[in-house]
Amino acid sequence: MRNILTIAGSDSGGGAGIQADLRTFAALKNYGTSAVTALTAQNTVGVQGVHGVPAEFVGQQIDSVLDDLEIHAIKTGMLFDAENTRVTVRALKRHYSDRTMPPLVCDPVCVSTSGHTLLAPDALQALTEDLFPLTTLITPNKSEAELLLSRAIHSLEDMFRAASDLLLRGPRAVLLKGGHMTATLVDVDALARTHPDACVVREALYDDNMEILAINRPQPETLVVDVLCEAGGRTTVLVRPHIDSSSTHGTGCTLSAAIASALADGATVSDAVISATAYTHLGIATAVKIGAGHGPLNHLHSVSQMGIPPRTPGNPYPFTRLLINGSATLWKEYVEHDFVRRLGQGTLPQASFIHFIKQDYHYLKYYARAYSLLAAKSAAFPLIASATQTIMHVLREITTHRAFCAEFGISEDELERTEEASATTAYGCYLMDIGIQGDTTKLLMALLACLLGYGEVGLWLKRAATRAGSGIALEGNPYRRWIEDYAGPEYQAAVRAGLETIEARAVADPPSPARLAEWRAVWDRCTRLEKAFWDMALDVEG
Amino acid sequence: MRNILTIAGSDSGGGAGIQADLRTFAALKNYGTSAVTALTAQNTVGVQGVHGVPAEFVGQQIDSVLDDLEIHAIKTGMLFDAENTRVTVRALKRHYSDRTMPPLVCDPVCVSTSGHTLLAPDALQALTEDLFPLTTLITPNKSEAELLLSRAIHSLEDMFRAASDLLLRGPRAVLLKGGHMTATLVDVDALARTHPDACVVREALYDDNMEILAINRPQPETLVVDVLCEAGGRTTVLVRPHIDSSSTHGTGCTLSAAIASALADGATVSDAVISATAYTHLGIATAVKIGAGHGPLNHLHSVSQMGIPPRTPGNPYPFTRLLINGSATLWKEYVEHDFVRRLGQGTLPQASFIHFIKQDYHYLKYYARAYSLLAAKSAAFPLIASATQTIMHVLREITTHRAFCAEFGISEDELERTEEASATTAYGCYLMDIGIQGDTTKLLMALLACLLGYGEVGLWLKRAATRAGSGIALEGNPYRRWIEDYAGPEYQAAVRAGLETIEARAVADPPSPARLAEWRAVWDRCTRLEKAFWDMALDVEG
Repeated sequence: MRNILTIAGSDSGGGAGIQADLRTFAALKNYGTSAVTALTAQNTVGVQGVHGVPAEFVGQQIDSVLDDLEIHAIKTGMLFDAENTRVTVRALKRHYSDRTMPPLVCDPVCVSTSGHTLLAPDALQALTEDLFPLTTLITPNKSEAELLLSRAIHSLEDMFRAASDLLLRGPRAVLLKGGHMTATLVDVDALARTHPDACVVREALYDDNMEILAINRPQPETLVVDVLCEAGGRTTVLVRPHIDSSSTHGTGCTLSAAIASALADGATVSDAVISATAYTHLGIATAVKIGAGHGPLNHLHSVSQMGIPPRTPGNPYPFTRLLINGSATLWKEYVEHDFVRRLGQGTLPQASFIHFIKQDYHYLKYYARAYSLLAAKSAAFPLIASATQTIMHVLREITTHRAFCAEFGISEDELERTEEASATTAYGCYLMDIGIQGDTTKLLMALLACLLGYGEVGLWLKRAATRAGSGIALEGNPYRRWIEDYAGPEYQAAVRAGLETIEARAVADPPSPARLAEWRAVWDRCTRLEKAFWDMALDVEG
Repeated sequence: MRNILTIAGSDSGGGAGIQADLRTFAALKNYGTSAVTALTAQNTVGVQGVHGVPAEFVGQQIDSVLDDLEIHAIKTGMLFDAENTRVTVRALKRHYSDRTMPPLVCDPVCVSTSGHTLLAPDALQALTEDLFPLTTLITPNKSEAELLLSRAIHSLEDMFRAASDLLLRGPRAVLLKGGHMTATLVDVDALARTHPDACVVREALYDDNMEILAINRPQPETLVVDVLCEAGGRTTVLVRPHIDSSSTHGTGCTLSAAIASALADGATVSDAVISATAYTHLGIATAVKIGAGHGPLNHLHSVSQMGIPPRTPGNPYPFTRLLINGSATLWKEYVEHDFVRRLGQGTLPQASFIHFIKQDYHYLKYYARAYSLLAAKSAAFPLIASATQTIMHVLREITTHRAFCAEFGISEDELERTEEASATTAYGCYLMDIGIQGDTTKLLMALLACLLGYGEVGLWLKRAATRAGSGIALEGNPYRRWIEDYAGPEYQAAVRAGLETIEARAVADPPSPARLAEWRAVWDRCTRLEKAFWDMALDVEG
């Protein structure tokens, strides 16, 4: 995150001024600070009032920011009057030398779209003589360029000349915005022929080898052209389709803020202008009209809401917590199932336990195969290794199961010959089906309810056994070894590794809302299948 | 998107005031407007200056917003003085009746964290008598509650009583914030026992049945407790771990803004408070320290950057455009390959064409199998249907291949017996491997380069054939039928269906940066494999 300062007016309607700037910085994940030069009472229809901020207080705001924070880019917008402009220049010079000045973008705001004068006439001199020489880039529109040069601009060729003439006033680059003029592809081709050294960027217009994308879409008839002239002679011409929209209030503020944001991120001037133009263009193209007049752009087209909270020391497993909370009742029915409680009390009929162990033996075959499928689906050695490690654990668990059964007089042969219960088939085949359908994360989701649930059961029984009156005891419990296995360090280490894997996945590949919903559905389904598995094991009594 | 108005002060440092409010609204995907009551020259260390805005102009800003926009929630922050408070009340009453007033959250800001007085003493009466009765919720902290009640608050029980006493002042709910006090679990348990009707929300503290999540993490020793009292008698106690952090500047502004945002979205007061508290807590927990003093929260923890631009009428296939632009050189080498050019000129040696058709026959077997795998991985009938439709297309394409070969005197038997070139095996098996590894979208990505590339080749050759001097012609071209097949309406309809599918996927399930990178890698790989396929076909000459 980089820090940016905007020195500009406030727009109560929120579409322009520092409000547009700060929203743009936020949308581009940077941190915005501001010095307000004037307040406007304004909406989409027009400017109803202006309250100029005393020059001294403008300077004080700039000082407060620059005294405290490292600033990585600055933009100026509406400076209101000559005094505020001069105070701004003095404050910047007080804090920075030519060498230490961060990238400075000056949007020379003079007149609002609705025709309201936003810069006192006597401020023009301060703007050009004092501020321009400090700037990385100025971003005048057609009327501002006309005002600054005292001549009319009629054609792309006029724009080209105006941009290079403005460069002589001291900024290191000039972006002359053509939003208030339209051009055709013929005009652009003519300009490109006259200026063969200029780089023409045809943003969102189709290039060669993309006829398949253009077939349903005629080339737009009217274009908007911006001209960027940089000291050193490099010129870039940015061409994009004209959008017929009334959601254009604050376009200039948004563009210069997005440029400042890209410069703060370390982009070159031309890259910053190209990305900021695309951002602003999409802001207009995706805007939903609000208000009776010229509404704001959509500044937030570039961001989406995260479905999973970030990991913090206080909540290291936010994704798993979300899963468990999302099916809290079902999860409780699973981990505090009567089967588990009676097992903890030592009152579970042996027949039920034997039936469970036999079915679990079958289930673990699916479980091992699902991890083998996970390894087969993994494109990196560490993933293949961890999946294989789990299979090795399962093979050891199987040995324990055989030993249990031997204690109860059941041979390995009888174990193998036991018919699979439908709860076992349902759960096992569901794992395999998810493994076929989805990617490795989805399969991990399916394998999680079993891993975590048995870990929770182990911890719960072990803790309850230490509490008088819980009825749960390890001493003399025929199932003690089973409980101690799942509460024990080896299994619990596997639980923690599984938690870590799944949380790391959610951070490395944060899911869209749709994908998160799918993951949660898989978790819920497996929790339900686990509960059905205990139900099945208890049912043998009846 | 809902529209929200904040009436508050401006913080040049950006961490509090309207700046925090607007950033919060944006992070929660709502649209913010603002009426500024006072400007502060402020940073993380303290408040260096305050410039009060004339009351009349505060009213004018509110009018500008409310005259034009439908507002779904309002929050007030620092109102600065009695006159601004009264003007605010009058403006709200002018625009709304009791019945039409949107949810109104009042953060009764009196004193800054750094001790600076932010509300003139004579404003207190206007605040409580005029504004409180209009509010949905007021959100005082401990010192503000003490000021409002003229008594000290020492314990959770004091907070509880203070909240219900403040409710008598007219707001429909009171959230008394305990951020400046700490409590222990014992205190909270005692409170819960004394007030059995209160709902205790233990945010980010582990609940029952979640020992697996708590095992590495001791319960926090100090807690923060907020008390929410609603008219009607419902009380909610919000408990969360205290975070030892200096990034707390603007916490109150952020919380009340997040509550207003949730209310604008239609949440109940208690749900709004619960979600806003979680949002604010994470803002502190994930903040990166900036500035020398109390730095701002991280307001943007809940959003991520989108990797793919939105679809617009001017750019209906942004994802595909991104893919093609990302491997532009390779794509051009593929679709304008010498094999294709010579095929268009009719100068391609027959041996090359036959070799190509024979290998393509084998490739199409993989291609059909990959679509079968796609159907097998699809959990919805429309997806199964579209994959199956494509297999039917491929089976018809195979018939065309057989007919071509018959023309060149090659029997079906010879076609089947042709040994697979390694370029064919590489490409075909790569499709199958991606089908094993990933989900349906990833497999679709792998199948896209073939579908789109042949479509592009068809369109390009057909268009070039109409241009004098291109050397490409359909008339008398032995490969005319091949060209017309791929340029023809049936194949082009399949291309458009494929484009639509892939773009719709990117919208329905926007990928994380990591996932997008994987998708692009698959696309690049397949473009490379396509080029290698033409290379192989041309090579037979040598």
